[in-house]
Amino acid sequence: MAQRKTLKSGIAAVEQDRITVHGLDLNRDLLGKINLGDMAFLELKKRLPTPQESVMFNAIAMAMAEYGMTPSAIVARIVYTGSPESVPPAIGAGINALGHGLAGAMEKAAKMLQQALPDPQANLDLEALAQKIVDAHAENRKIPGFGVPFHKPLDPRTTRLCEIARTNGFDGPYLKLMGLIKRQASSRFGQAFPISAPGAVGAIACELRLPWHTVRGILAVGRAVGLLGHLLEENDEPLAREIQTRAQEETTANLRQKR
Amino acid sequence: MAQRKTLKSGIAAVEQDRITVHGLDLNRDLLGKINLGDMAFLELKKRLPTPQESVMFNAIAMAMAEYGMTPSAIVARIVYTGSPESVPPAIGAGINALGHGLAGAMEKAAKMLQQALPDPQANLDLEALAQKIVDAHAENRKIPGFGVPFHKPLDPRTTRLCEIARTNGFDGPYLKLMGLIKRQASSRFGQAFPISAPGAVGAIACELRLPWHTVRGILAVGRAVGLLGHLLEENDEPLAREIQTRAQEETTANLRQKR
Amino acid sequence: MAQRKTLKSGIAAVEQDRITVHGLDLNRDLLGKINLGDMAFLELKKRLPTPQESVMFNAIAMAMAEYGMTPSAIVARIVYTGSPESVPPAIGAGINALGHGLAGAMEKAAKMLQQALPDPQANLDLEALAQKIVDAHAENRKIPGFGVPFHKPLDPRTTRLCEIARTNGFDGPYLKLMGLIKRQASSRFGQAFPISAPGAVGAIACELRLPWHTVRGILAVGRAVGLLGHLLEENDEPLAREIQTRAQEETTANLRQKR
Amino acid sequence: MAQRKTLKSGIAAVEQDRITVHGLDLNRDLLGKINLGDMAFLELKKRLPTPQESVMFNAIAMAMAEYGMTPSAIVARIVYTGSPESVPPAIGAGINALGHGLAGAMEKAAKMLQQALPDPQANLDLEALAQKIVDAHAENRKIPGFGVPFHKPLDPRTTRLCEIARTNGFDGPYLKLMGLIKRQASSRFGQAFPISAPGAVGAIACELRLPWHTVRGILAVGRAVGLLGHLLEENDEPLAREIQTRAQEETTANLRQKR
Repeated sequence: MAQRKTLKSGIAAVEQDRITVHGLDLNRDLLGKINLGDMAFLELKKRLPTPQESVMFNAIAMAMAEYGMTPSAIVARIVYTGSPESVPPAIGAGINALGHGLAGAMEKAAKMLQQALPDPQANLDLEALAQKIVDAHAENRKIPGFGVPFHKPLDPRTTRLCEIARTNGFDGPYLKLMGLIKRQASSRFGQAFPISAPGAVGAIACELRLPWHTVRGILAVGRAVGLLGHLLEENDEPLAREIQTRAQEETTANLRQKR
Repeated sequence: MAQRKTLKSGIAAVEQDRITVHGLDLNRDLLGKINLGDMAFLELKKRLPTPQESVMFNAIAMAMAEYGMTPSAIVARIVYTGSPESVPPAIGAGINALGHGLAGAMEKAAKMLQQALPDPQANLDLEALAQKIVDAHAENRKIPGFGVPFHKPLDPRTTRLCEIARTNGFDGPYLKLMGLIKRQASSRFGQAFPISAPGAVGAIACELRLPWHTVRGILAVGRAVGLLGHLLEENDEPLAREIQTRAQEETTANLRQKR
Repeated sequence: MAQRKTLKSGIAAVEQDRITVHGLDLNRDLLGKINLGDMAFLELKKRLPTPQESVMFNAIAMAMAEYGMTPSAIVARIVYTGSPESVPPAIGAGINALGHGLAGAMEKAAKMLQQALPDPQANLDLEALAQKIVDAHAENRKIPGFGVPFHKPLDPRTTRLCEIARTNGFDGPYLKLMGLIKRQASSRFGQAFPISAPGAVGAIACELRLPWHTVRGILAVGRAVGLLGHLLEENDEPLAREIQTRAQEETTANLRQKR
Repeated sequence: MAQRKTLKSGIAAVEQDRITVHGLDLNRDLLGKINLGDMAFLELKKRLPTPQESVMFNAIAMAMAEYGMTPSAIVARIVYTGSPESVPPAIGAGINALGHGLAGAMEKAAKMLQQALPDPQANLDLEALAQKIVDAHAENRKIPGFGVPFHKPLDPRTTRLCEIARTNGFDGPYLKLMGLIKRQASSRFGQAFPISAPGAVGAIACELRLPWHTVRGILAVGRAVGLLGHLLEENDEPLAREIQTRAQEETTANLRQKR
């Protein structure tokens, strides 16, 4: 049985007297010196963030952490119900809920932007790129990262994230492209086309040069943070059981009525 | 069908023009101002951390983030293999791996300490408490949060975390109790009884007055951060498939031989 | 790096021209000849079931498959919402919900019985064993596998499962012990002590000589079967989003009121 | 807060004295009378199978249940390692591994066939449909449901499943279309184009008139059955820890060498 391939990883070296992460000593360089968001940045970029990157990355990782009774939160709470033994599976199940249908916009927006503009240094005509994107989505008038069904007039997080991007020097070509898409789409389709919070996060991830396929991972980390509060509250003042019982009773009553 | 109970949550209010988390405005008070670890602290303590708490909490959340090819990392990588569509389920599965067998020490240590000393202000005799705990584990000589099979002479993270605790004023009764257990157990059982990194994290969680049942949640968040790097690397330089193929070939070869 | 241990598995041999499972040829001996429940039996017992075992095992595996809007079903539906890409993670999350709090009774009943009567051939005094078990649970008057909060007078599945057990020769010492516990506990605590469906399944698993720690696995398989119907229906007539929206709105309204 | 939508489900009615599934009484009509695969059929088709459908459906559900050290099996075993408390999360994580990359072929084949031939009664020119499909995949010469990298000359399960289909009257237009694609692709690309086992399962699912998006659900159920054996064996003769330790040691050694 030939071992056809060597297992290689450049992330961590775990030795008897020390642990290094991308060449940095966990004890000497990281613990007590950087924060959890910086650690995530290190995992993704293989280097520590600059102060500006630290602020920006922590902001996008946090922006999606808490949003009340999200699908993730309800799933985690139900799994946790009466199961003090199962905190990790509750969080794991909540993260499973970050599928494309509920949480795909962020990733899709980042992918769309990176495919349109693979090299952010390239001096491309952003207006033309925006038009191409709007064209490509003209049929159903839905563009990933745009449209805010609930918040009026726009998602409060979008404004703030763009402000932080400007202040820290991340208002580059991807955010500009988002702005142009917004303008062109509104004028063409005759309706407001606000950038959603997931859209802003996706574009800023591009500004931070993070590959689009890592974006839902950042979302998962942020949401896991939010789930901590939901599981603590579910432990102290449970509500998941009530949600489930109501659904059971309502569907049963409706079915009985039908007979 | 009576709705027997109102659904109440004090965590977040999601309104058209703003989102608040434990009374703080996500935009005005949190984004761009605090880091991801502070956000987790807010979820668990319903208030922002002091600067000292921020350093301490971020340190324990990060301490377990990265440890190379952990069970979690391998699970997440295998799930991700060839599935660019499934970043969240890969992370979710990796978090499922944080069961008691692999990741229980941290929670068990915190639980043991909080049950021994429910009120950290109470002026109890810590030596006596330590003796009671050592007694209770005398049979198999295993105490949650102690014993470091791999690192020699002790887990490098333990030293550093205790140092950060001292510097920031968190070397309170729970860490003292750990020290006393260590001393008593080594002298009684005639062997070194080093505090493990999970043990240090569990005790510091107690110093931060975090309920023991939230501790594996913090671990899950930290580990999710580490998985970001593993999934990125698995995407760029896959190794999970090789691990699986080797296991398939080796077990098949051994079974054939047996026949 | 020493390979300290050989990887051995006796389950399956995957060869170029055939696949065997516990020595049986998947094509020749299994496909088209046995059913899915028998396959599960083969995985657990390393041999095919007798006709009686086949009926009995399929019955306990099916008994928990469908029970309407269970926590599992709601979790799976929420994860699936709008995510045609994620059928397996939806089922995976639903299975995560089978924690001790929601689904532990079956396993706990089987464990209790196997610990009381490790050798079912041993000619022990079952009345005395029952008394010991009732004694051990006298404080909170809760015995795993007993008590049926919803169904009156008892869970309809219990009667039928016990009937199938009798017809097929599985009314052995474990079911007898359950009956004795029921009688002693009702007379002692002065209230009905019906055997729950999970209790009946747990006891019958013992009659089939299945280790208690595999029982929740059988539950997981059965429940996965039920989730197929829920995910199909969620696809055709979604309701998960409505459940989530109601919870979001109700908690937000209550929080606003409080301010 | 308006309840904008009623929660309706036609699957199960859970009443005090009985449980019905798609109108059938769980006790009277199902337990002890049908098998677990039939129960899954009932969930998906809302009626019981004919004897032929029962044989066919059980066969496809079982065909993927066991295949040795699959990604799913390793994931489930690692999650289970040392965690007797976590059987369901281990199965849940194993099911998460059934992503498109590892387990998509079955679903993709079914989708391709149902899109090509939405109405199996329609008298379409199957040769022309096959050509269209081969054309559409001419670039990379990969067609979902074809190609068997390991088994020579073809997956043993394919032959047997097709035989069961013939015997039971399920060798309809979808299996014919698969055969035509195979013939056309081999002649056009000058290489063998064997139907894979997932391809056969996908096509037979079409013959059973199951929507393509349910096919990975059936796979998940079958694989959950297989995981029962792997978790039992992992409990008795663990190997997951060894797999993980080897990976940890090999990557660490390679990283140290590089420095």
